[in-house]
Amino acid sequence: MRIFRVNVERRFSDLDMLQHINNVVYNDYLQEGRIRMMRKLREDFAEPYFPQVLVRQEINYRKTLVLGPAPLVVEAWISSVGRTSYEVGLRILDDDGSLAADAISIMVCFDPDTQKPVPIPADYRAALVAAMEGD
Amino acid sequence: MRIFRVNVERRFSDLDMLQHINNVVYNDYLQEGRIRMMRKLREDFAEPYFPQVLVRQEINYRKTLVLGPAPLVVEAWISSVGRTSYEVGLRILDDDGSLAADAISIMVCFDPDTQKPVPIPADYRAALVAAMEGD
Amino acid sequence: MRIFRVNVERRFSDLDMLQHINNVVYNDYLQEGRIRMMRKLREDFAEPYFPQVLVRQEINYRKTLVLGPAPLVVEAWISSVGRTSYEVGLRILDDDGSLAADAISIMVCFDPDTQKPVPIPADYRAALVAAMEGD
Amino acid sequence: MRIFRVNVERRFSDLDMLQHINNVVYNDYLQEGRIRMMRKLREDFAEPYFPQVLVRQEINYRKTLVLGPAPLVVEAWISSVGRTSYEVGLRILDDDGSLAADAISIMVCFDPDTQKPVPIPADYRAALVAAMEGD
Repeated sequence: MRIFRVNVERRFSDLDMLQHINNVVYNDYLQEGRIRMMRKLREDFAEPYFPQVLVRQEINYRKTLVLGPAPLVVEAWISSVGRTSYEVGLRILDDDGSLAADAISIMVCFDPDTQKPVPIPADYRAALVAAMEGD
Repeated sequence: MRIFRVNVERRFSDLDMLQHINNVVYNDYLQEGRIRMMRKLREDFAEPYFPQVLVRQEINYRKTLVLGPAPLVVEAWISSVGRTSYEVGLRILDDDGSLAADAISIMVCFDPDTQKPVPIPADYRAALVAAMEGD
Repeated sequence: MRIFRVNVERRFSDLDMLQHINNVVYNDYLQEGRIRMMRKLREDFAEPYFPQVLVRQEINYRKTLVLGPAPLVVEAWISSVGRTSYEVGLRILDDDGSLAADAISIMVCFDPDTQKPVPIPADYRAALVAAMEGD
Repeated sequence: MRIFRVNVERRFSDLDMLQHINNVVYNDYLQEGRIRMMRKLREDFAEPYFPQVLVRQEINYRKTLVLGPAPLVVEAWISSVGRTSYEVGLRILDDDGSLAADAISIMVCFDPDTQKPVPIPADYRAALVAAMEGD
């Protein structure tokens, strides 16, 4: 399993009135991890952009995050690959390496005309399987 | 089961580059539904503020949302009540009444000094149970 | 001068760690006022969308805003119309009518190919002048 | 004049439906530059936190920004120091060094009880003057 790691900087505006990073913003960090993993996968496999959409997300909040100058780390990996959908595993780590949240995102490929699910494009599917099985 | 309904307005800044309301923003809408339900529960039961935190959220994205002048509706209700935690059910409805997302949020009461879970305050627990069983 | 008034709801996520609506979010409110005024102007004058961009904004923060259930009011009006650019006047009012901020935004029409300013489309310019001079 | 430079990463959620970084988000980048400059000034001068507020901002949008992996640079400096207020100069630079925006922010120190302006604390004022005159 190949793990994609990206640094994400905290912003003052990520805080809520409790002086914590708001729970909604964790989802923004997950989005950064997911999008940058996909960008990397497409770069490696020369797959052009195609329509896909997030259909389900589960997140466990493990730790309160506060503002600080050191970036967070978001880890993302491919945890399973189906015919029209695949699952992304995600973790948010604080700058001391402690777990702040774990999550899964389920992505579905679709036809923009019919809005129905379609098979994952073959090249991208191969890249997803390679990322799932590789190291 | 008492269902709390709140209107939430869309903002231009909720859109992403695909001209859809970004998946992260759905979590902001859920937060509005949850917070305004809690404000109402506290008003009704004179329970002062106490520390609680979101520990888990599951969301199913059912429909793409676009910008429009009519508000969305967020429905929130208490779906189960435990000793230290409770579960909130949530739905986001587009302005034509169609389902855009459903979700559950699990909230935990905690002691801010020890950061450990503590029993839900008795009055608030009674309000939660009444909301779960009432209409 | 025709004044366009729109209600804008506050969200929990608009707050910062000082429990105030963050200064950045005031700009989001101004954007809502500006965009909804333009939507109205286009509706009234059947002018299709054309490229324009914000090139300058000045904002005076007059009052701290806090969270509350009542919407804010954003007032927007056309304060001057040039050949390629025009100026929008804006005010944010708290729910008691008190002034929270005033601002001006300068918009420029441009050619997306050359990225150079171009004259305001004639029909839209007529609408802007009518809004500036009308009531 | 001492110039404080901070890197700010772009996020997917900073984009609007035109695939540009939304004008509102530039203000978030300015806030990051301003806050991190102040953190540095306080570190250097051991000045504890004291109440101050943004009362005016002017921003000129010079260039459209798009998403990309390289961080932006925000430059911040002290451009003038008064009795109760001071002015911060700011620039946002794209990753090729080109100017994306310039701005000024006016900050005022105030008494949280009376909400009236008060003189800038002497130590912090000395730090501001040193930053303005230094290199």
